[in-house]
Amino acid sequence: MGGSFFGRILKISTFGESHGKAIGVIIDGCPAGLKIYKRDIEKYLHRRAPISKFSTARHEPDKFEILSGIMDNQTLGTPICIIVENKNFNADDYSREIFRPGHADYCYEKKFGCRDYRGGGRASGRETVARVIAGCIAQKFLTQLEIDVRAYTYSINNICIKKIDWHENFLFMPDKNSFTKAVNFLENMPADDSVGGIVECTVKNIKCGIGEPIFDKLDAQIAKAVMSIGAVKGIEFGSGFGSTYLFGSQNNDEYYFDDGVKKKSNNSGGITGGITDGGDIIFRAAIKPTPSIAKLQNTINNTNENVQIKTRGRHDKIIVPRAVVVIESMTAIALMDQILLSCTAKFSDVKKNYFGRR
Amino acid sequence: MGGSFFGRILKISTFGESHGKAIGVIIDGCPAGLKIYKRDIEKYLHRRAPISKFSTARHEPDKFEILSGIMDNQTLGTPICIIVENKNFNADDYSREIFRPGHADYCYEKKFGCRDYRGGGRASGRETVARVIAGCIAQKFLTQLEIDVRAYTYSINNICIKKIDWHENFLFMPDKNSFTKAVNFLENMPADDSVGGIVECTVKNIKCGIGEPIFDKLDAQIAKAVMSIGAVKGIEFGSGFGSTYLFGSQNNDEYYFDDGVKKKSNNSGGITGGITDGGDIIFRAAIKPTPSIAKLQNTINNTNENVQIKTRGRHDKIIVPRAVVVIESMTAIALMDQILLSCTAKFSDVKKNYFGRR
Amino acid sequence: MGGSFFGRILKISTFGESHGKAIGVIIDGCPAGLKIYKRDIEKYLHRRAPISKFSTARHEPDKFEILSGIMDNQTLGTPICIIVENKNFNADDYSREIFRPGHADYCYEKKFGCRDYRGGGRASGRETVARVIAGCIAQKFLTQLEIDVRAYTYSINNICIKKIDWHENFLFMPDKNSFTKAVNFLENMPADDSVGGIVECTVKNIKCGIGEPIFDKLDAQIAKAVMSIGAVKGIEFGSGFGSTYLFGSQNNDEYYFDDGVKKKSNNSGGITGGITDGGDIIFRAAIKPTPSIAKLQNTINNTNENVQIKTRGRHDKIIVPRAVVVIESMTAIALMDQILLSCTAKFSDVKKNYFGRR
Amino acid sequence: MGGSFFGRILKISTFGESHGKAIGVIIDGCPAGLKIYKRDIEKYLHRRAPISKFSTARHEPDKFEILSGIMDNQTLGTPICIIVENKNFNADDYSREIFRPGHADYCYEKKFGCRDYRGGGRASGRETVARVIAGCIAQKFLTQLEIDVRAYTYSINNICIKKIDWHENFLFMPDKNSFTKAVNFLENMPADDSVGGIVECTVKNIKCGIGEPIFDKLDAQIAKAVMSIGAVKGIEFGSGFGSTYLFGSQNNDEYYFDDGVKKKSNNSGGITGGITDGGDIIFRAAIKPTPSIAKLQNTINNTNENVQIKTRGRHDKIIVPRAVVVIESMTAIALMDQILLSCTAKFSDVKKNYFGRR
Repeated sequence: MGGSFFGRILKISTFGESHGKAIGVIIDGCPAGLKIYKRDIEKYLHRRAPISKFSTARHEPDKFEILSGIMDNQTLGTPICIIVENKNFNADDYSREIFRPGHADYCYEKKFGCRDYRGGGRASGRETVARVIAGCIAQKFLTQLEIDVRAYTYSINNICIKKIDWHENFLFMPDKNSFTKAVNFLENMPADDSVGGIVECTVKNIKCGIGEPIFDKLDAQIAKAVMSIGAVKGIEFGSGFGSTYLFGSQNNDEYYFDDGVKKKSNNSGGITGGITDGGDIIFRAAIKPTPSIAKLQNTINNTNENVQIKTRGRHDKIIVPRAVVVIESMTAIALMDQILLSCTAKFSDVKKNYFGRR
Repeated sequence: MGGSFFGRILKISTFGESHGKAIGVIIDGCPAGLKIYKRDIEKYLHRRAPISKFSTARHEPDKFEILSGIMDNQTLGTPICIIVENKNFNADDYSREIFRPGHADYCYEKKFGCRDYRGGGRASGRETVARVIAGCIAQKFLTQLEIDVRAYTYSINNICIKKIDWHENFLFMPDKNSFTKAVNFLENMPADDSVGGIVECTVKNIKCGIGEPIFDKLDAQIAKAVMSIGAVKGIEFGSGFGSTYLFGSQNNDEYYFDDGVKKKSNNSGGITGGITDGGDIIFRAAIKPTPSIAKLQNTINNTNENVQIKTRGRHDKIIVPRAVVVIESMTAIALMDQILLSCTAKFSDVKKNYFGRR
Repeated sequence: MGGSFFGRILKISTFGESHGKAIGVIIDGCPAGLKIYKRDIEKYLHRRAPISKFSTARHEPDKFEILSGIMDNQTLGTPICIIVENKNFNADDYSREIFRPGHADYCYEKKFGCRDYRGGGRASGRETVARVIAGCIAQKFLTQLEIDVRAYTYSINNICIKKIDWHENFLFMPDKNSFTKAVNFLENMPADDSVGGIVECTVKNIKCGIGEPIFDKLDAQIAKAVMSIGAVKGIEFGSGFGSTYLFGSQNNDEYYFDDGVKKKSNNSGGITGGITDGGDIIFRAAIKPTPSIAKLQNTINNTNENVQIKTRGRHDKIIVPRAVVVIESMTAIALMDQILLSCTAKFSDVKKNYFGRR
Repeated sequence: MGGSFFGRILKISTFGESHGKAIGVIIDGCPAGLKIYKRDIEKYLHRRAPISKFSTARHEPDKFEILSGIMDNQTLGTPICIIVENKNFNADDYSREIFRPGHADYCYEKKFGCRDYRGGGRASGRETVARVIAGCIAQKFLTQLEIDVRAYTYSINNICIKKIDWHENFLFMPDKNSFTKAVNFLENMPADDSVGGIVECTVKNIKCGIGEPIFDKLDAQIAKAVMSIGAVKGIEFGSGFGSTYLFGSQNNDEYYFDDGVKKKSNNSGGITGGITDGGDIIFRAAIKPTPSIAKLQNTINNTNENVQIKTRGRHDKIIVPRAVVVIESMTAIALMDQILLSCTAKFSDVKKNYFGRR
């Protein structure tokens, strides 16, 4: 138990079932004096909303309430609790007896001996609303440090971006050409099925020296943070799986000095030995096709009978665009935690901080 | 700081620089009454030794000493400390001033303001000896529960196994045909360069219901454990990145009952919603080519001058076969921790355990 | 920061300022299948209410809402979130500029550079409502294991109980005679001042073998749990400070067998070497006099001027009776955490649990 | 299990049985660049040695070895491992079958189903050698911040110091007069018995604002740290249990400004609301009489027979003077952890630290 906690200095804990009263998050360990406006959270949260026609028809207003930790639009250093009530749901869409394929229904039942079957309960994508709220706080923190974390749709099925030409679109896919192809693909694919894709995330302008050695390497921590998101099935940094086809001489990033220390390439994805190396952090995460589909599928029920199920409820044909901000959020949270931790890496810094206290 | 700790119930902490006095590990939280023989550890540790001609010429005897926690070949429930002295090393091979490309030299210097430059210090592959010792304890635990964790070389550069026909070889590559090709490739590639590859790991016969929801999903925890190994640049479970090319109807694993609950496919890689789903756990990890190469490379020194370096010291042309047991170890450690945690998932189990106490 | 988290298997996190929107708690790691009724919490929470005439005039309805983790009056194994709105408060009673003596106003300002000055913000006794809610869940768990945790008023100023003759009274003081004296004392003491006292807590019928060696000794953990309550200034177990006047031969508890293993005395307070030894757990905690008093006191303001203050707001002449249930709660939480942990002490138990899984 | 870990930023883990091969500690999270000389540790460790005639005849050389984390007398930021071999011991003094009264023998057996019976195994006072080594590192850190942590013998049985006139003596008792009385008492008490006493500890010159709110209050953390030492049965801060006899108007510490913010009294013991308030930290810990005595005592054996035992082995008539440096060590460790954590309390500090990075 106890898997709903994340972080070491910045400590996040979330709660809430899909069809329960509310979803929410406590964020403890956020330094005091950080400016947070309600509209920041509103705006960020909106990026997770099902804005496209390929997304679920469950439209939650996602009206959140700040219960603690912020006064006069500023963090107090005490736990920030923010909750969102669940409003627009229909429990009748779900079966207590039948385990949906590709979902965690069966696993929860085996683990706990019971489960909230309504909408997947705790194992619903709705849980990510709490991650995004915490992610927004972390983004506010990073922005003040001039660090830019940004995720986007890298591919949908076999349609992959060729370049980054930013323009707003409901798939959060930065290459206009690929975007058009992807829309076309989604319109023409079977209506009762779903697809997956890849999200890429970059962290620009982060200083060298952030992250921990050994078990808490920065890439290991980001991997955990991102892999903990429901539908993510893989992650790779920099040249990633592709690095296995390269020679060491091709994959090593050579350093050089030219008005600052620079790297000739960034195959490392900005992290070497678990610590930022001066390059941008770059990674890709694989999102499996949404398991909820309207097609008839074989499965079992809770008395071990072979049965069939057609998933009802309102679901996403593709979850990738909505996962973008969730991946960005988890990355921001993991980074913020590490940056806080890095304040204590050097004794000289700790000393300066202590004596600076009045 | 503090990145050398791993786990929640089973708590591991490691120490040691490559060219310091010793490397070692404390394993706390291992249940009392588990049989551990010295020869178990010897045998397991031997799998990490540089047995092939493509590996480093640094031959450490890896003679370990059990300092605590085991009496009469049985765990006491108290911390197990095991250390290995460093014997066969040569600090002269390393430069205090120059930062090697692809290594963490520069990152450590930026983070800590100082570093043990000899052999990469803490950021050396030698650190993994402590992981393998802990991994051996975890394997002993899992074996008693009839769980079989096994990793092997899946690919070296572009030579990938086609089938699993087990036979012992120094590349730990299960397909005889691919093994022959790989040896040929390694013999004919440039002597002053290095290559990478992919390690696959399977966990057979694990029960359903192991793992935690939300942030501590089992795949997230294994991802963190495995990504924390030096040269790993990516990980994917089940159909992984390949799932992004599938439809939901293809990727979902249908359940059926036939003398037990079974799955028609295992695209999930044995984990759904972060919890074991009854299938074998299966994942692949990408290992980058060894950064230490004898080729001349550009880099900088600690006064920001552009310089060149030819890595001396004794290094591995390919690290993949030696990474196999390390990946297996980290997987076993993560699994053991989760299995211990799962004892408290159901109140009825806790009650039975408590009242069973004499 | 991040001090609002407690526990290792059972993980508690709380939030909320005294005069903010709400106070609440997330309880993660509670095993699934534990029966919890709303009325259990209502009843338990009522014990913290200011029922006596010596308590604050702030009467909060303490109407709580269960937001997650419980379905059909049973825990799901997922995080339980329960919140209580703040209703009856008056921020005008408090000064943003002046630091109250005996309160944490000045400390928070120095630590965070800002604070919620209304009612002490996070440092208010109101925070304990979250502890009591979590404590109620823990008590439900312990009761099912037939463990009885009970705290009571041991002394008020210099009036100390002589015996335990249980009868309900608003001071939670079990000796009728002492109760009468204490009421008399409280009625006759200066109206603008406050007093303290001692709370004693016993844990009956707990099995031997609960608790951890070394840093996580059970008494150390209970000490932390109880000392973390606002006004507690000391704690002692068994013969406690009195043991320093005894000889070893007097203080050692001799074991004997008579239809079970028994101890001739219980100077240890039920814990030896950090582990329950078969005796009842017994400890006492010192509660300082409430710092909020109506008397004029000297202090400084935030521009370092010497000023005087007469605490307004509605406060308790004595906090001891209201602290009783808070101390009981923290004890129950610490115990539940340790009992969960103890499920993994013996390998034979872990094995039995694992193979018992269906 | 897993009780051998302590701390959040500064992470300590210890290992070792009394009569095993070695005792040791890993200290992770110590900032890089702190000067540590071997002689510092030697000197500090010597304070724990049994120097008086009232102490055990087991004279361990306590020759320690630094295995990692320190190079050129300076911390590297990586885990520091230091071990001490056990040399001078005699396992024959101990019985596998009989449980000694006042010791944890019986508790360990019940918890783990087995134990290292030689010298109490892990539950021996010898374990504290690891705490003192870690404590020395923490003291070095605090000294650089001009913080002075010092513990001393406050009382032995009913002989209590009246004043602090520092002079070196083997009881670490600062009042010369009391020291003489205590020596006299110890010489004339029964040779086969033991006594306890109280240790007082002060922390001078610590800045305001250190410590965490709610569960991780500084006094709660020190309480846990100190109560985790074998023979400690109680702790009180400032006016402690005595505060329960005072009125609020007497116990509150009034602030005033006179060339700096000052307090008229220090009943709080330097901590208010869990955070340092500008006064010296002051607390007292009760040490029970050593349980190992040569007197014949009743107890049981592992087949539940009533038997008698006369503790053999070499033991301390009084452990109080040797506990002084252990209490000092645990206090220093807890403080160092909190000071590291306090670097992240204010966003402005974090920002300054991050942008100061080169």
